[in-house]
Amino acid sequence: MARHPAHAHDPRSDVKEDVGARAAAMLAEAADISEPGPGVTRLPFTAEHARAAETIEGWMRDAGLATRRDAAATIIGRREGTDPGAGTLLLGSHQDSVKNGGAFDGMMGVLLPILAADMLGDRPLPFAVEIVAFADEEGVRFPTALLGPRALAGTFDPGVLDLEDRDGTSLRSALADFGGDPDGLAGLARDPEDVIGFIETHIEQGPVLEAEDLSVGIVTAICGIERHEVAITGRAAHAGTSPMDLRHDALAAAAELVGAVERVCRETENAVGTVGRLEVSPNVVNAVPGKVTLSVELRSADDATRRAVRSSVEAAAREAAGGRGCALEMACTYEQPARACDSALRASLERAVAASGGRPLGLMSGATHDASAMADLCPMAMLFVRCRDGVSHHPDEYASPEDMGAAVEALRLFLLDRAGQ
Amino acid sequence: MARHPAHAHDPRSDVKEDVGARAAAMLAEAADISEPGPGVTRLPFTAEHARAAETIEGWMRDAGLATRRDAAATIIGRREGTDPGAGTLLLGSHQDSVKNGGAFDGMMGVLLPILAADMLGDRPLPFAVEIVAFADEEGVRFPTALLGPRALAGTFDPGVLDLEDRDGTSLRSALADFGGDPDGLAGLARDPEDVIGFIETHIEQGPVLEAEDLSVGIVTAICGIERHEVAITGRAAHAGTSPMDLRHDALAAAAELVGAVERVCRETENAVGTVGRLEVSPNVVNAVPGKVTLSVELRSADDATRRAVRSSVEAAAREAAGGRGCALEMACTYEQPARACDSALRASLERAVAASGGRPLGLMSGATHDASAMADLCPMAMLFVRCRDGVSHHPDEYASPEDMGAAVEALRLFLLDRAGQ
Repeated sequence: MARHPAHAHDPRSDVKEDVGARAAAMLAEAADISEPGPGVTRLPFTAEHARAAETIEGWMRDAGLATRRDAAATIIGRREGTDPGAGTLLLGSHQDSVKNGGAFDGMMGVLLPILAADMLGDRPLPFAVEIVAFADEEGVRFPTALLGPRALAGTFDPGVLDLEDRDGTSLRSALADFGGDPDGLAGLARDPEDVIGFIETHIEQGPVLEAEDLSVGIVTAICGIERHEVAITGRAAHAGTSPMDLRHDALAAAAELVGAVERVCRETENAVGTVGRLEVSPNVVNAVPGKVTLSVELRSADDATRRAVRSSVEAAAREAAGGRGCALEMACTYEQPARACDSALRASLERAVAASGGRPLGLMSGATHDASAMADLCPMAMLFVRCRDGVSHHPDEYASPEDMGAAVEALRLFLLDRAGQ
Repeated sequence: MARHPAHAHDPRSDVKEDVGARAAAMLAEAADISEPGPGVTRLPFTAEHARAAETIEGWMRDAGLATRRDAAATIIGRREGTDPGAGTLLLGSHQDSVKNGGAFDGMMGVLLPILAADMLGDRPLPFAVEIVAFADEEGVRFPTALLGPRALAGTFDPGVLDLEDRDGTSLRSALADFGGDPDGLAGLARDPEDVIGFIETHIEQGPVLEAEDLSVGIVTAICGIERHEVAITGRAAHAGTSPMDLRHDALAAAAELVGAVERVCRETENAVGTVGRLEVSPNVVNAVPGKVTLSVELRSADDATRRAVRSSVEAAAREAAGGRGCALEMACTYEQPARACDSALRASLERAVAASGGRPLGLMSGATHDASAMADLCPMAMLFVRCRDGVSHHPDEYASPEDMGAAVEALRLFLLDRAGQ
């Protein structure tokens, strides 16, 4: 990886600009590693994941990091410290995307700390630094996520290995076929005494930094999140010969529930709720739907608020199904409490952002991140990067080279700040 | 076909019981003429159709009818009248089934009038009677249906002959290979002056007769149908970082529309409406849906009622989409007006049902039938037979021998009523 030559007039500004442009070019290259279709589709343990992993390992080696993969298929690039007792600081994010997502979510949080480590050159730090690229943060392929960070935190539930994707492939076999080691996951748990903390860099995925005209922001807390799998079973019937009052229309019940999720969350401060997935059976124009399955996802930075929303949604689901003589199954498939970011790590980030000429704004994360799971292991913090129009999970997702350069510089100064330099 | 000996105590009751049992046995035999798999799968112009046609012709001959097939592969069994100027009364239904359908839909409406004609024995009627078994009512193999009745009515569109099934076989070549005559279809049009009317006997495919505890019912009208293809386009977004008030959630809009279809049709006498098909994009748990496509189907026996329902549904769709900043496209893909049953034929059926000891209940047909197309040729009416749980188009489809016996007796008395006897 070629270094930018220093200029006399304003060396750091030029370096930031240069590294931002390099980041943009490298992310564009990574974005080509995708299933066909608009944007980026890179699901965990696929051929695209394998190619992305090789690319990431190349980035790491170019930055002087020693690479390896752990049993969860997490890619790890390590820079040794000078003091064996000073522990290890982890930075990173995930390699996977949603379907037809963008080039920045996840992958940018892998690349920018690699570039920050690269810019340190041979400058010694007392602690070791590991850049990690986790396999599965989005939870799109399997009805679970965060395998890698949970394994590191020792909070991994072996039961999820039996969960299957839509093709009936289990997480266990997908991981094993990818070269991971399902039986070795339990052995990945890190010693909390050795881990200084985890810093995740991520596009904001929201509109706050754009409104504040800031390149980066410092996260104060990550929202809690819960997901439910809902099945409403009515009775398929001829669309012409079934009087309205004798129907058991599973889609009409589901529609009432979708409306309730929207209404309850609109009426609740500090909460969002989404029915993102919904499937109808038999799904033909002239049959009353007999069965609908759907997902309900609820988020709030305040766990009590989220639980209150859940109760309202559950009551609405019972009423929507019961009122139409439909059966209701509602199973919580995922729950993660809200996570506060570590105050000492935040303070270091704030000093780093200020030292690089920025205004250190605190903001909340509405999305879950690998950092949410890492919080079970160690102190964590997050650096958000402004993204255009708040768009993410979409081909139009975009962070500017300038903002990425500012983030790399903030991460570099953060590492120096942690080293007391 | 052996006649049941008359008994002194209640001859007609025993005859009804006997003929019902015979109908059940004959339909069970016909149900074996099917593609492999659950239930009955008998598509038009197939080997199964050929075997069924021979079976039907055997039934007709046993009942003393002279059989022939016309250019549309309609099987016709004729009983001459004593008065050449008295015209011809047509009765019948279709031989084909949906995939994995039942033994009664269509075929029962062919068999029961054959049995009614058989029970008349040598008793002379002034008018001729023709029992017809049409080839294709369900529209499963080709994207068209009702070839036989439309040919008789002179409303047949030659363009449909070029439509192909999934294997690329055109309707024209399928019909020709079956022994029909595509070029002879135009010559099938009957002289309306000669046709007294068409009576179709069919399972109800709904729950009304069961709820009323009646063997048979008399159709007042065949409902009109319209179908719309709806696309609601919002904006896909991250489910966690998109505040509720900044979303353009296509599924929330669609759900409001689904609710409106249900509500409007519940509030409207004599209308049903169904959203049978709905598809979400990107359809993942953690993305606000960006696009939903869905079907809306509306039916009513009264066209003005149906148009009023459509207006309400369209207004609700505009409000649901517009209120969320979503774009709405709504295109009518199919429309068919309602068909009233002929009042004189209905009156004859009512007298026949009453004379056979039943209560002549009028009810709407929510489904389309061969009679819908025959209405372009002549007065038509329909006799519905109770079916268990309202189930049709399914292997569990069932009409009892007792109810079929009652229908045969009603048809026999109807023929006598029409003859003034």
